[in-house]
Amino acid sequence: MRPVVALAGGVGAAKLLRGLVQVVPLDDLLIVGNTGDDFELYGLHISPDLDIIMYTLAGIVDEAKGYGVAGDTFHFLDMLKRLGFETWFGLGDRDLAVHVVRTEMLGRGMTLSQATAELCRMLHVKAKLVPMSNDPVRTKVLTGQLRLDFQEYFVKRRAEDVVSSVVYEGCERAKPAPGVLEAIERAERIVICPSNPVLSVSPMLSIPGFRDGLRQSNACVVGVSPIVGGKALKGPADKVMASLGFEASAYGVAKFYEDFLDHLIIDNADEPHRTSIETLGVKATVTDTVMRSAEDSVRLAKVVANV
Amino acid sequence: MRPVVALAGGVGAAKLLRGLVQVVPLDDLLIVGNTGDDFELYGLHISPDLDIIMYTLAGIVDEAKGYGVAGDTFHFLDMLKRLGFETWFGLGDRDLAVHVVRTEMLGRGMTLSQATAELCRMLHVKAKLVPMSNDPVRTKVLTGQLRLDFQEYFVKRRAEDVVSSVVYEGCERAKPAPGVLEAIERAERIVICPSNPVLSVSPMLSIPGFRDGLRQSNACVVGVSPIVGGKALKGPADKVMASLGFEASAYGVAKFYEDFLDHLIIDNADEPHRTSIETLGVKATVTDTVMRSAEDSVRLAKVVANV
Repeated sequence: MRPVVALAGGVGAAKLLRGLVQVVPLDDLLIVGNTGDDFELYGLHISPDLDIIMYTLAGIVDEAKGYGVAGDTFHFLDMLKRLGFETWFGLGDRDLAVHVVRTEMLGRGMTLSQATAELCRMLHVKAKLVPMSNDPVRTKVLTGQLRLDFQEYFVKRRAEDVVSSVVYEGCERAKPAPGVLEAIERAERIVICPSNPVLSVSPMLSIPGFRDGLRQSNACVVGVSPIVGGKALKGPADKVMASLGFEASAYGVAKFYEDFLDHLIIDNADEPHRTSIETLGVKATVTDTVMRSAEDSVRLAKVVANV
Repeated sequence: MRPVVALAGGVGAAKLLRGLVQVVPLDDLLIVGNTGDDFELYGLHISPDLDIIMYTLAGIVDEAKGYGVAGDTFHFLDMLKRLGFETWFGLGDRDLAVHVVRTEMLGRGMTLSQATAELCRMLHVKAKLVPMSNDPVRTKVLTGQLRLDFQEYFVKRRAEDVVSSVVYEGCERAKPAPGVLEAIERAERIVICPSNPVLSVSPMLSIPGFRDGLRQSNACVVGVSPIVGGKALKGPADKVMASLGFEASAYGVAKFYEDFLDHLIIDNADEPHRTSIETLGVKATVTDTVMRSAEDSVRLAKVVANV
């Protein structure tokens, strides 16, 4: 079978993926996770988007937050605070096990692809998840005079700064992870999950060969707009797109991806954008895109897999 | 002032030290901790004896167990188990913060001495604690055909194997930590804490120059017997001494240290050994050596500091 490739950020992507794994045969699915948000904290390698996807597909994610492990505790973090450390990043005690194990694997010389495969096996996640790259690409947010690490911008400063530009440090030297370009080339369908175009998907697109691969693929490239009624469902996608000169709308999302996007799934609230999106040469399908339940995820995934 | 140097293993030593820090001016005290039990677990550097001493002096130790942090939880370990790891070493969630921070410091190139000083500062431990060495010395226990790591013997296999010999891997290349030999040379008093002679004190003695330093020092070298009435108060000191050909008694402890020991504090139960100990040229003081409370620790520390 020709593969289905899903390009995924964090929470929004994971919600769609929990449906997609029920709709697409697992052997045919390759999930490519954003690692532009990866960072080191207390010497541990943290891959927030890969973790969100793994926890969601393993059925252990904290549903209310969309990330972290359900029912987790924060005693490690309390102790770090007592030791005098800053503790703005919420590392749960159970969550920590994954970071420690990943860090140990990388320390032994495993690639992030290999470590991710091992963690998926340990968590009984059957879908194939790979990082976008085994090389470090680090999203940096420029705001005023500051150049912020992604997590500093996003978690510590709650995405409240006005973003003047975004850079993907290391992207020019990074290679897509093994198998990614090949899968994109052979794919029947490529899904751009409802993730932040600038902060979650662009780190992938910044890697040499990645965007060209999408443009040249014969696959049907289907996106789901993360912007509904002019607002991001979660996170700062709307603000960031606007401050970088993109329209914070379903149309803006289509425009952002227009060089490789064939089809965009937009919310009922965005029906008025359908015509303008189609003038870009992108087909638009209007449906309910807000995923409040696992059933919503399956229903939307079916649309994504069949348009 | 001439320093007081305390050679310390884990739980028994920590109980004496919590008294000693009240009896000896802190500026004059140097605690030298055994690191023969140190090991790597899940990529983390763990120093069990240094931790026990730090937690005890910080007032956060789990009093009932003698190690670990009071009221700690084990959710990290539960998750590791879920991931398929062996989890025989009890890493608490709060405890883990110290291991992660230490590992990060060592990874940045700090020595174990420096990392220990930093952790003591963070935990508000005012006494000066140093590892016996910044070089790896690893206690290995030979039993039957097996060569066990110390923690494997002690924790995983519950010290149930008959020990045929003990080696201190790396000792011949190790140097005492900075300041240790100098303090031993200048010391007014050297305290051998009530720790396992073979498994907690001998790793130090195995380091070139260490035992000679004790022999040559003008200090009064005072030990506290960890064996009371022929039994170790905690751990396998009695069994290990016996299987290595030492008498498992207060006399056996005096014999073990006779080349540098001036004075041994023994328990009331061991009064009958007094005469035979003194034939070794070691003075013996008989008192209650079992420390059930902080007050017991202070009382015994006063004896140790004043004989």
